[in-house]
Amino acid sequence: MDNSIDSKKCVVVYSGGLDSTVLLTKCKGEFDEVVALNFSYGSKHNYKERKAARKVCEHLQIPLFLYDLPSTCSSVSTSGILIEGKPFLKSDLLKSGGDVPEGHYEDVNMKRTVVPYRNSIMLSIAAGFAESIEAKYIAVANHAGDHAIYKDCRKEYIEAFAEGIKLGGYGEVIVYSPFVDMSKVEIVKLGSEINAPMELSWSCYKGGEKHCKICGTCSERVESFLLAGVPDPTEYDT
Amino acid sequence: MDNSIDSKKCVVVYSGGLDSTVLLTKCKGEFDEVVALNFSYGSKHNYKERKAARKVCEHLQIPLFLYDLPSTCSSVSTSGILIEGKPFLKSDLLKSGGDVPEGHYEDVNMKRTVVPYRNSIMLSIAAGFAESIEAKYIAVANHAGDHAIYKDCRKEYIEAFAEGIKLGGYGEVIVYSPFVDMSKVEIVKLGSEINAPMELSWSCYKGGEKHCKICGTCSERVESFLLAGVPDPTEYDT
Repeated sequence: MDNSIDSKKCVVVYSGGLDSTVLLTKCKGEFDEVVALNFSYGSKHNYKERKAARKVCEHLQIPLFLYDLPSTCSSVSTSGILIEGKPFLKSDLLKSGGDVPEGHYEDVNMKRTVVPYRNSIMLSIAAGFAESIEAKYIAVANHAGDHAIYKDCRKEYIEAFAEGIKLGGYGEVIVYSPFVDMSKVEIVKLGSEINAPMELSWSCYKGGEKHCKICGTCSERVESFLLAGVPDPTEYDT
Repeated sequence: MDNSIDSKKCVVVYSGGLDSTVLLTKCKGEFDEVVALNFSYGSKHNYKERKAARKVCEHLQIPLFLYDLPSTCSSVSTSGILIEGKPFLKSDLLKSGGDVPEGHYEDVNMKRTVVPYRNSIMLSIAAGFAESIEAKYIAVANHAGDHAIYKDCRKEYIEAFAEGIKLGGYGEVIVYSPFVDMSKVEIVKLGSEINAPMELSWSCYKGGEKHCKICGTCSERVESFLLAGVPDPTEYDT
């Protein structure tokens, strides 16, 4: 992993969430050319996240690419019978899973919202896309607060994975993860400093009309603005 | 990376090609439970490979899962205009690319058939699937002969990536790549010893009715059977 900047083009893995909105704004200031790459993978809140991603990218004048990972697979039994539309990855974050649990983002029950290897999958695909469009960097917004639950957001993981990515392509794509040691509070402070359009971002896992304020990621959002001493621009349901 | 076997369930990344057919047969002998995971990603020869994958899995009595990666993305311009169906990864192996070059598999012009980070993408998704179905291992058939052209088949890459995979999930999925130091000739010899149904496998990048015998992967197939001293069961076009 190399967090220095010496290249012109960067693909930002961009969910439309708070952290990656700050990252996208930061990258726009640091690279000559930035494109955003947004994934869908069957999550309950995908529609709202993607809508936010479009608003933010239009606001920042950054081209946005949308890549749709299927949430289902087909299976062929040993007797040759084909069944289509089977859920592929197991998580309560997905439409195919159970209800999204309430509580703090770092609570143990939030493990049910882990999409196995989601970060690995998105980073690998982003690396392939970066090489295809001759971008040297891929940027990802994982931060210290993700580490409790999301194992593939941890620094050790990112370092090993980034080494693989560097070795695995012709362009030697570099993973840029400047938030890996930062808390979400620090990210909100940074976002405020660099005028990131945080008010346009979407966090809530429930995907309702407004942010629910009680799901894990909403409670983390509320807390982060509060502790950062930054006015919270979010419209909440309650 | 840990090439010892101490678990019961393994997901084999299975293309329907020669190498992974031998791997699948080997894994069936070594694990209590084996499932095959086949990807499509818009390659020219996908139809033939998948047909072969189904035949081999039925022959070996192994359940097969089919996961379709879209070959295109959408883009949203800075003025908010959405365009669908744009080619996503750049490679002459894909339907969206140029003609598949002829010549030896290890020739420099075969670089045009590289799908950027294909192995990383498939391994990450396989890891997510493995964790979802509670499999401890993912097996992949990359071998020494792949190394010249396909950077994400090299040992250093696989080791770094496998470390990332181990760190990135709750199940600590282990990457099993027993062919990483073997040549294709050795794989064919092994396939012959363990009665792998190599005659049902598909290699040709052109995806015609029969194997073309002249594309990079066909010439490598022909050569490997010859040098292994194993009768070549393949039906060729010429």
